[in-house]
Amino acid sequence: MSIQNDLLLRVLNNEPVERPPIWLMRQAGRILPEYRAIRSSLSGFIELVTTPHLAAEVTLQPVDILGVDAAIIFSDILVIPECMGLPYELVEKKGPRFLDTIKSNDDVKKLGFGRSAAEELDYVYNAVDLTKKALDNRVPLIGFAGAPWTLLAYMVEGQGSKTFSKAKALLYKDPNTAHELLEKLTETIIAYLKLKIKAGVDVVQVFDSWAGMLSKPLYDTFCMPYLKRIVDEIKEVPTILFSKGAYFSMPELIHAGSNAIGLDWTIEPQSFRDTFGYEKVVQGNLDPCVLYSDPTEVRTHAQNMIKGFEKNHIVNLGHGVYPDTPLDGVKAFINTVKSYQY
Amino acid sequence: MSIQNDLLLRVLNNEPVERPPIWLMRQAGRILPEYRAIRSSLSGFIELVTTPHLAAEVTLQPVDILGVDAAIIFSDILVIPECMGLPYELVEKKGPRFLDTIKSNDDVKKLGFGRSAAEELDYVYNAVDLTKKALDNRVPLIGFAGAPWTLLAYMVEGQGSKTFSKAKALLYKDPNTAHELLEKLTETIIAYLKLKIKAGVDVVQVFDSWAGMLSKPLYDTFCMPYLKRIVDEIKEVPTILFSKGAYFSMPELIHAGSNAIGLDWTIEPQSFRDTFGYEKVVQGNLDPCVLYSDPTEVRTHAQNMIKGFEKNHIVNLGHGVYPDTPLDGVKAFINTVKSYQY
Repeated sequence: MSIQNDLLLRVLNNEPVERPPIWLMRQAGRILPEYRAIRSSLSGFIELVTTPHLAAEVTLQPVDILGVDAAIIFSDILVIPECMGLPYELVEKKGPRFLDTIKSNDDVKKLGFGRSAAEELDYVYNAVDLTKKALDNRVPLIGFAGAPWTLLAYMVEGQGSKTFSKAKALLYKDPNTAHELLEKLTETIIAYLKLKIKAGVDVVQVFDSWAGMLSKPLYDTFCMPYLKRIVDEIKEVPTILFSKGAYFSMPELIHAGSNAIGLDWTIEPQSFRDTFGYEKVVQGNLDPCVLYSDPTEVRTHAQNMIKGFEKNHIVNLGHGVYPDTPLDGVKAFINTVKSYQY
Repeated sequence: MSIQNDLLLRVLNNEPVERPPIWLMRQAGRILPEYRAIRSSLSGFIELVTTPHLAAEVTLQPVDILGVDAAIIFSDILVIPECMGLPYELVEKKGPRFLDTIKSNDDVKKLGFGRSAAEELDYVYNAVDLTKKALDNRVPLIGFAGAPWTLLAYMVEGQGSKTFSKAKALLYKDPNTAHELLEKLTETIIAYLKLKIKAGVDVVQVFDSWAGMLSKPLYDTFCMPYLKRIVDEIKEVPTILFSKGAYFSMPELIHAGSNAIGLDWTIEPQSFRDTFGYEKVVQGNLDPCVLYSDPTEVRTHAQNMIKGFEKNHIVNLGHGVYPDTPLDGVKAFINTVKSYQY
């Protein structure tokens, strides 16, 4: 069954489009009053992630209310550590907390991984299935996973961090244990994405949220080989790789094999095209803080970005939309893109 | 009176040296047991900052104990907002907290600034004076200030932040108020650095710790003009500009007029020299997490970095030393540099 609004899929396949598609990282979330209404009736974020009909409902909200060109299944990157045996909780206003962390090679040895671990995440596949039915092929559905390094960072650190120094210390002090954990994560991520695809997602995105904490040598050693393996194995649907902050490995990311790469807002559109050409499909990269401006300013910034990338471009922010972003800014952004003509 | 170990001063004046000098950002701090002993006897961090003989004592510790080639006066970048009328406190394990924040143009109007504000920071100048006497010209003494944008970020946000979205929102929504605050900060920073120089510091460094939160257009608009003005006005001693994360404005930073620029660890030494040449004096940029490795590894990383920059190089980390860094790693780093021969 073909998808009615297939702008995103056409761009990912390097086909011509009349305007760029737009969706927003974290579009299913606190920016929408309808999301906050559902969320406030629940015990916590994890109840929302693990209850398929609710996850499906909030996934659909931005499509119905904002008119974005793609849905992204509501979930969390930390479901992978969870299914490997390292459960997390989300503390209000503080972020994720793991009860146990990875402190030694023995801790890595004990982790489940691969297909059998990924199969435990039934609630995700059920949410995908419900969402696909309700979407009724209006727009594509994106599935996602955290990248191996970003998940390792949380599993070692046990929570967010300004430096992720414990996680980075593992890479320097015990690279073998780090690689062992990254291998297990990679196999689990691949199995998980394949099960999501089987359940119905049309595109997958891999989030390497903490890429920018590393140096180029660390990134090339502990991230790129695993990211390449993931995109090599996922051939069923187009793939998007978003390594936030990894400007230093841009040539390697461009050639990693994904259909598109995400860019954060520190990358200047025109200067990216001048350096790397027009062929690579890129996704991004408006500074999320632009959306705090008044709608006229938002429109100007959005149009300049689109002109800068010129083509082969999926419009998005350079990071997830911040929870306190005014809805007027979000709408001005989306409407600017939808009325744009190449 | 000439300084005995003048390696740092010679590099900053583009004179030849037999080996690069080394000092560490945050060298006066928790890595040293002798620092922790003093700190634990006090009511808090701010007591240490505001008590000249104690600030002087911890400033001297890394010179005496570790043998670094420069001292940096123990203080905090937030003394500037404090003397402008916005006091802060430091909450253990959480970081700075401001009781009041900048919410409107009226709040900016109320701030003191310039020479009269800077003159309130007697305790800093007294600490510089005491330190200079105790140093007895063994090594140069560095004074520092936060950059206008980084101080604005704290004054608007009221504390640290993963995104500094409130501070960035001000730049987009009310650029006039932002510029008014940046002007006042710049005048205060210049007056403060001049008073520090009068009290005896031999070099000044400006820390733009949150540069990397911005985009190139924001950085060029809200940071570069003020940084240039600061380095233009400070002609008495050499200046070092450290804009962490501002890789996107590297050409502008190189030509801003400072004697040296600091680099974070995301910049590859050899690739920096290939792109920008060998003439600029650079400071940095070992990943602080390298120091968690065993001493042999530390030595290899340090030597490779020195070879990569080749000359016109002040050795440092790419960020402040992390508080839990093993002293063996720190010593291996310092001793490697001190036994290096160009």
